Amino acid sequence: MSATLSGLSRRGQVPVFQATRVLAAANALEAAGRDIVHLEVGQPAGGAPQVAVAAAQAALGTHPLGYTESLGVPDLRRGIAALYGRRYGLDLDPGRVIVTTGSSAAFLLAFLALFDAGARVGVVEPGYPAYRNMLGALDLVPVALPVDGATGFNPMPQHLAAAGKLDGLLVASPANPTGAMLDGAALGSLVDATRARGIRLISDEIYHGISYGKPAVTALSLDPEAVVVSGFSKYFGMTGWRIGWMIVPAALVPTVDRLAQNFFISAPSLSQIAACAALEAEEELDARVAIYARNRALLAEALPRLGFRDVLVPDGAFYLYSGLPAGETDSEAFCARLLDERGIALTPGTDFDPVRGRGTVRFSFAGAHVRIVEAVRRLEGAPL
Amino acid sequence: MSATLSGLSRRGQVPVFQATRVLAAANALEAAGRDIVHLEVGQPAGGAPQVAVAAAQAALGTHPLGYTESLGVPDLRRGIAALYGRRYGLDLDPGRVIVTTGSSAAFLLAFLALFDAGARVGVVEPGYPAYRNMLGALDLVPVALPVDGATGFNPMPQHLAAAGKLDGLLVASPANPTGAMLDGAALGSLVDATRARGIRLISDEIYHGISYGKPAVTALSLDPEAVVVSGFSKYFGMTGWRIGWMIVPAALVPTVDRLAQNFFISAPSLSQIAACAALEAEEELDARVAIYARNRALLAEALPRLGFRDVLVPDGAFYLYSGLPAGETDSEAFCARLLDERGIALTPGTDFDPVRGRGTVRFSFAGAHVRIVEAVRRLEGAPL
Repeated sequence: MSATLSGLSRRGQVPVFQATRVLAAANALEAAGRDIVHLEVGQPAGGAPQVAVAAAQAALGTHPLGYTESLGVPDLRRGIAALYGRRYGLDLDPGRVIVTTGSSAAFLLAFLALFDAGARVGVVEPGYPAYRNMLGALDLVPVALPVDGATGFNPMPQHLAAAGKLDGLLVASPANPTGAMLDGAALGSLVDATRARGIRLISDEIYHGISYGKPAVTALSLDPEAVVVSGFSKYFGMTGWRIGWMIVPAALVPTVDRLAQNFFISAPSLSQIAACAALEAEEELDARVAIYARNRALLAEALPRLGFRDVLVPDGAFYLYSGLPAGETDSEAFCARLLDERGIALTPGTDFDPVRGRGTVRFSFAGAHVRIVEAVRRLEGAPL
Repeated sequence: MSATLSGLSRRGQVPVFQATRVLAAANALEAAGRDIVHLEVGQPAGGAPQVAVAAAQAALGTHPLGYTESLGVPDLRRGIAALYGRRYGLDLDPGRVIVTTGSSAAFLLAFLALFDAGARVGVVEPGYPAYRNMLGALDLVPVALPVDGATGFNPMPQHLAAAGKLDGLLVASPANPTGAMLDGAALGSLVDATRARGIRLISDEIYHGISYGKPAVTALSLDPEAVVVSGFSKYFGMTGWRIGWMIVPAALVPTVDRLAQNFFISAPSLSQIAACAALEAEEELDARVAIYARNRALLAEALPRLGFRDVLVPDGAFYLYSGLPAGETDSEAFCARLLDERGIALTPGTDFDPVRGRGTVRFSFAGAHVRIVEAVRRLEGAPL
């Protein structure tokens, strides 16, 4: 076999997620009979709401489930536009709504439609690691904007100024892993700064619907040129259905449409039907947010008492990002030990912040309340 | 609004599919009450096989349908590996099988894992337009390999020699739109030529299972280094379920896994469950191929009689690629007229071959036999 044939691309060499390593180790322990509390993955325990499952059941066996329009079925595009009316009081043209195969697909489409190779895109650190990995694999340059407690872990115009020339900025509110949220004033100042500098704003709003008092603000209400990414995986509980959406300026729709035709053909048909129904399930889904709120309150009370330092109580999403207990300096080793000794799976902070993340961990509290109670009980068992 | 904010990327400007334009025009006529015979899209009429629908029904409401392993659920990976045993007599390690969100996702993963920007990848012309559009959007260089009747519309080593330096070669057998198939000797000579030149071979085998006498040969049986792409959309009839697979050399699995984690998280859960069941539906699915064979025979008999020239009777897949009738020189105008005057939707050849395709059209005969009969009846109505 020649060297060329064994050769892989440089851009395809993205780092492995620590969360995936933890999950694999946790699954191996479970296969050996251990009971593991899973706090490592951002997967809501409830699954799709009942009306969505019922809609899928009704469609199965009667609907052909062929390819759909590449931009999504008209009913779902209209339903999503109506959600922006209910949630934010916006009158959104359904023609600007693009249904995607999860929010993952929306990022690919946005990155390809907006940026040529070499473009520099600001990403907040700590942040969701797939942003920088996708950017890098597409020959774009992720530029880290390190945030900390001084700005509530939110990016501000001064972070832009420090980043050098940028072509794009990716923000998330609520943010993963910190749960930080940008209020209207903070988001407005970022919008002003990006427009003044000719920077394209991409706003990841996948955790909208899950917040604890502060209202979530959509970038769409402040900047009609923003590209907004969201989806059905978090608030709507439909992770494995792979269904999301993006809102783009009207001028961008034909470009995204052609890219979507080529890269995806269409989003999954049955998931689009179920998602239409899920839009009507706000009562069931808000009841889940109430459970997340109980989980959050329990962890916020217990973790400082158990020795965790710099515990960041989130404004939204279902993650709690925290410093390690005193004396701990290696989050990956700490997570491995916690899994082994206490049967608790956490994600090391290095997934979200390669350098400072050595001192942090992320708790996902999207599971059932009894499992968070059990995690706390296990942490209380003996000094860490 | 500054010029920068309205600016789109260069690489994102891929051409629109003519098939999409025809489909939109056909749908508009249908909305106005016309009956249209759809021969423009490659969508099997039957949908998912019954056992697949039943498996999905059983899973709905009982299975959490969360994210799965990024490489796919183990049962499905094993089931696909077993298919290679039944179909081709190969003993395939399920660890080399990667479940993807349709074959579309497999192409993205293959292109990113194998090629850095600027790499030159040979694509057969006429061929599936998404190949060259995806390559271009990823900063790769699609290099057209024009084929014709001299080689049965198959690529041969002489086409490689004429293409200049190549880093990759994408072949499809059965091919879209020509239905051409590479037999073992022809595929073997291509494998030898690519290996001698250090060219990565990607083999699109999505139409395997649909052929009319000639056995389909998998590149895997000749070249363990080949990347094979396939899926459940064509033979298995599951287009809208968005579920496919790729087979890669073992050394490539970790790279593709990390890219899949970042770009897709996982393929749709319910589609994976249904696909597992579909693997057992060969009797139902082979009965459909018998219908395609009747459709093919009808068109092969009728089209030359109706004035179509250079009618290419396919060895596999469910397309018939043909020259236009005498006097016609513009396939897009011809298709527009046929839709308007006869209510028949076809795809102009320009989707598959930007230059020579002005003289060709593609008939998709994946629909019900009565619709093909109806199309022929309408063509017989008056001289074209």
